[in-house]
Amino acid sequence: MQIKNGDIVYLIFDKRRKFLKTVKAGEKFHCDRGYIDFDDIIGKNFGTIIESKPYNHNVIILKPLPSDIILNLSRASQIIYPEDIGLILVYSGIQPGSIILEAGCGSGILTSIMAIHIQPNGHIYSFDNRIEAIKQTQKNIEKMGLQNYVTLSHNDIINDDISNIIQVECDIIMLDMATPWLAIPKIHHFLKNSGVCCCFSPVIEQVKKNHLALKANGFVEIETYELLKRKIQVREDMDATRPETRMIGHTGYITFGRKIEPYIEKKEKKEKLPTEIKNEHSEMVLKFNLDENNDK
Amino acid sequence: MQIKNGDIVYLIFDKRRKFLKTVKAGEKFHCDRGYIDFDDIIGKNFGTIIESKPYNHNVIILKPLPSDIILNLSRASQIIYPEDIGLILVYSGIQPGSIILEAGCGSGILTSIMAIHIQPNGHIYSFDNRIEAIKQTQKNIEKMGLQNYVTLSHNDIINDDISNIIQVECDIIMLDMATPWLAIPKIHHFLKNSGVCCCFSPVIEQVKKNHLALKANGFVEIETYELLKRKIQVREDMDATRPETRMIGHTGYITFGRKIEPYIEKKEKKEKLPTEIKNEHSEMVLKFNLDENNDK
Amino acid sequence: MQIKNGDIVYLIFDKRRKFLKTVKAGEKFHCDRGYIDFDDIIGKNFGTIIESKPYNHNVIILKPLPSDIILNLSRASQIIYPEDIGLILVYSGIQPGSIILEAGCGSGILTSIMAIHIQPNGHIYSFDNRIEAIKQTQKNIEKMGLQNYVTLSHNDIINDDISNIIQVECDIIMLDMATPWLAIPKIHHFLKNSGVCCCFSPVIEQVKKNHLALKANGFVEIETYELLKRKIQVREDMDATRPETRMIGHTGYITFGRKIEPYIEKKEKKEKLPTEIKNEHSEMVLKFNLDENNDK
Amino acid sequence: MQIKNGDIVYLIFDKRRKFLKTVKAGEKFHCDRGYIDFDDIIGKNFGTIIESKPYNHNVIILKPLPSDIILNLSRASQIIYPEDIGLILVYSGIQPGSIILEAGCGSGILTSIMAIHIQPNGHIYSFDNRIEAIKQTQKNIEKMGLQNYVTLSHNDIINDDISNIIQVECDIIMLDMATPWLAIPKIHHFLKNSGVCCCFSPVIEQVKKNHLALKANGFVEIETYELLKRKIQVREDMDATRPETRMIGHTGYITFGRKIEPYIEKKEKKEKLPTEIKNEHSEMVLKFNLDENNDK
Repeated sequence: MQIKNGDIVYLIFDKRRKFLKTVKAGEKFHCDRGYIDFDDIIGKNFGTIIESKPYNHNVIILKPLPSDIILNLSRASQIIYPEDIGLILVYSGIQPGSIILEAGCGSGILTSIMAIHIQPNGHIYSFDNRIEAIKQTQKNIEKMGLQNYVTLSHNDIINDDISNIIQVECDIIMLDMATPWLAIPKIHHFLKNSGVCCCFSPVIEQVKKNHLALKANGFVEIETYELLKRKIQVREDMDATRPETRMIGHTGYITFGRKIEPYIEKKEKKEKLPTEIKNEHSEMVLKFNLDENNDK
Repeated sequence: MQIKNGDIVYLIFDKRRKFLKTVKAGEKFHCDRGYIDFDDIIGKNFGTIIESKPYNHNVIILKPLPSDIILNLSRASQIIYPEDIGLILVYSGIQPGSIILEAGCGSGILTSIMAIHIQPNGHIYSFDNRIEAIKQTQKNIEKMGLQNYVTLSHNDIINDDISNIIQVECDIIMLDMATPWLAIPKIHHFLKNSGVCCCFSPVIEQVKKNHLALKANGFVEIETYELLKRKIQVREDMDATRPETRMIGHTGYITFGRKIEPYIEKKEKKEKLPTEIKNEHSEMVLKFNLDENNDK
Repeated sequence: MQIKNGDIVYLIFDKRRKFLKTVKAGEKFHCDRGYIDFDDIIGKNFGTIIESKPYNHNVIILKPLPSDIILNLSRASQIIYPEDIGLILVYSGIQPGSIILEAGCGSGILTSIMAIHIQPNGHIYSFDNRIEAIKQTQKNIEKMGLQNYVTLSHNDIINDDISNIIQVECDIIMLDMATPWLAIPKIHHFLKNSGVCCCFSPVIEQVKKNHLALKANGFVEIETYELLKRKIQVREDMDATRPETRMIGHTGYITFGRKIEPYIEKKEKKEKLPTEIKNEHSEMVLKFNLDENNDK
Repeated sequence: MQIKNGDIVYLIFDKRRKFLKTVKAGEKFHCDRGYIDFDDIIGKNFGTIIESKPYNHNVIILKPLPSDIILNLSRASQIIYPEDIGLILVYSGIQPGSIILEAGCGSGILTSIMAIHIQPNGHIYSFDNRIEAIKQTQKNIEKMGLQNYVTLSHNDIINDDISNIIQVECDIIMLDMATPWLAIPKIHHFLKNSGVCCCFSPVIEQVKKNHLALKANGFVEIETYELLKRKIQVREDMDATRPETRMIGHTGYITFGRKIEPYIEKKEKKEKLPTEIKNEHSEMVLKFNLDENNDK
């Protein structure tokens, strides 16, 4: 694939000098290992190697992956890690065509990765009550050419009426904000039945509040996960395989719940279950609010 | 979204009774909590609740997520976990339009999830030398209606000539097989420059072999990760938040490398670098084969 | 070392048949792989192998380690894992001669291991308000011959006056009970200055309460840890090294704090610190209550 | 407990200024928060607070715990972490009275902690082939007053005859050296039957070699563990409980094996086991060398 003016390239000088840059015809990129002329790389293929001037240092030019973007894109707020975004994609069912309501766009990293995955016919309605976050996200999604897939709005979803902005039912609600439990009662009606609400929360006190809010608003299958990613150090020249000495010990807690439609409580006793099931059932009551209704 | 004949539904009777089933008009699904008539749910919306007959037990009907499919689809070989698939999506850059060469389709779970994400204009060329794996994958991708996105072939990619089957350059090579290091030299030419080769290996001895093979065949940015996923136990009725007592301690090691184009070694000494950089550089030599050439 | 009547032996028939048993002259031990006569092993050395009757199955006889005892001793309450006990030993400074106040003796496993380590001149004052726990612990410490090192008392340390039982200052307070934060204000005066209070708590809500109680009662250096232990699977006959598929995902949170003597708040402003230190200092205020006083 | 001349004290100025120092009458200790006169603290109790001169900064004086020593003692070689030492204590059965053969004393940290735990009648025979390690360990054990419990020898245990130095049978062999698998055949005869050999190895390639060497030299119950320790961040002033962002991702792999006495292979077929056991047994063969002999 040929490199064009305006493309984002991932320039690798060496292990510690890796840069995510937009190709600009007529301009240069400088670092302490020399500089490259963007005009020299336009028309070349991704995956090529050029030499920096005047040091003749080899520079690899890659097409950036989502993981490169996540780890290198400028950011105003807390980072979200690639492994967590991967978990969110799979457990939320984000895919081509998904309609997503996002609150808390941060610097637009998660927004951008989701936008890549919902192409070509999905859409993201993204809200943030911080104007700086909106501006940063705007900049980043434009840099990546994803602006057609995202509608950005400077709103407080807890207090503002956003029903004029988002007029379709969503497949996913993605909450990366300080108080998801306050937002859930206000916006869960934008979500389709069987849709997923996902909350990213860095501290454990928020997790319980998210669970309670999801349960109170008709969500089931509420689960919270955290991921620990270890990088394995491999030395090609010797026997020294081991996990790296330092790792990220905590990124955040990710909670998922699935919306179901309201249902009428049954007044009649349900038919007796065999005794051995009953015991197990009584334990279940703690987990499923629909089970509670079965028992009434 | 309405449930149609042929859809896959996720039926939840309670915590331990969850079933992934294909809706078949005129048929029933039975378990020890009663049965449901598929005719009763056709035309209803996903996210609805019906009662089982004759026990009147509430049953939630959800549209299955990728994570549900991964954890519930019938399988002939080892499971691959949702979190690992998420990592693969993000670190491989799998997205709408991706062309993927997969070797080792197992029972088709990873194939199916990748197929969802490359829609509507991507394609997967999937190979396995075990006829049972091909049959199982065929069945599963048809069940999910993804057959247009996958070309399945019963081949041994190490020994067979597959160049008549896959006539385009791929964005990603995905190896979930016993000996990726034997496959890499045979198939890396199918991969675009800047493309990603990903190897999933359950044991650590394979990881080093994968690294060596990737390095020997022109890959850079070779990294291996493992994920630990913990589920957090939250009790809405009491203060008892904690990670679950038991967890999966190991799924596998996932190695990524990126292909670059061959380049000519420079014979001349490169211009001297400032001393303080030089030291760091000599450390770099261990990591980047392109750096080695710089030094010659 | 010779096996004597009354010794505890660790009998290993195979991977799944391992038994911690007390040698009783004239008696036998039976399992489905046969039986052994205790008379046959008295006088033999630990580390020997005998054959079971009548199956002639090899049985290894080992002297049990603390880790064997921890994982095999009969128990009435929740297990505490060897790795957590190891952490407690090192972070509490438990060693020969230590005087320990323990509340919540469970089935006596932690009590026993601590008793081994404080020999020959240390002592443990152990309390529990559950008579069953006291009985179980009594039985277990007698089985291990450690009764001289432990004074067991059936008391509620939150509400009972225990000052007639424990008349020396302790080096360590070990709390493995439901509400350490209620006990700390009542019993911290039994602890020497510079001594350690350790709380084992399975859920995170307790951790914060423990921190607040320790801080309010003059403790510093308050830290909480959790351990994840992975067992590595090694196959001598093939390349298949990897962490085991299943592991214990959570045992508990272990909090340590160190008691300091009360001190008089200074009323005068302290001498000005250089500005660059000041900023850092203001962050410190969150952590050290003595710093708070410095600022007054 | 009163502070005496020659004691080691742990001086805490604030979160980042913590020092392990030996009290020397007539001397001072200086840092950027001021200095303290050791004469001012001699005779005071551990756990007291004094003010630094001239800044009047509060300084806590604690009696150092093993964990403080481990993390603060000067060192020439790689650190061993408190949690790993705890695991070693519990899984090796190190306790008052233990006789230990140690090879690879590093800077003496593990040696020192083990020496504390084997008091008053145990002993450690510690070897290292690096004179610097011997000197550093000598210095550290003297600083802690543990010299009576340790015999240090500058020897290569793989090639030197050490039988004139260690003339008793050991309870534990502790190998913290580069090639434990080469040492095991040379020194396992110093270990009592039922005794434990423990190997600390940072990389996975060594683990398999350790397993093979232990198995070949009559050890059973061979197991390898790794520990992950997470510190939990608790803010007393707000809801912000979470694991710390950064953690140590890998310290090392710790392998344990237990020596059994040599035994004569049985020539006769052993009595037939019931069929359902037999299958399981054949799986066992991979694990227990004594089982192999049963089958011959």
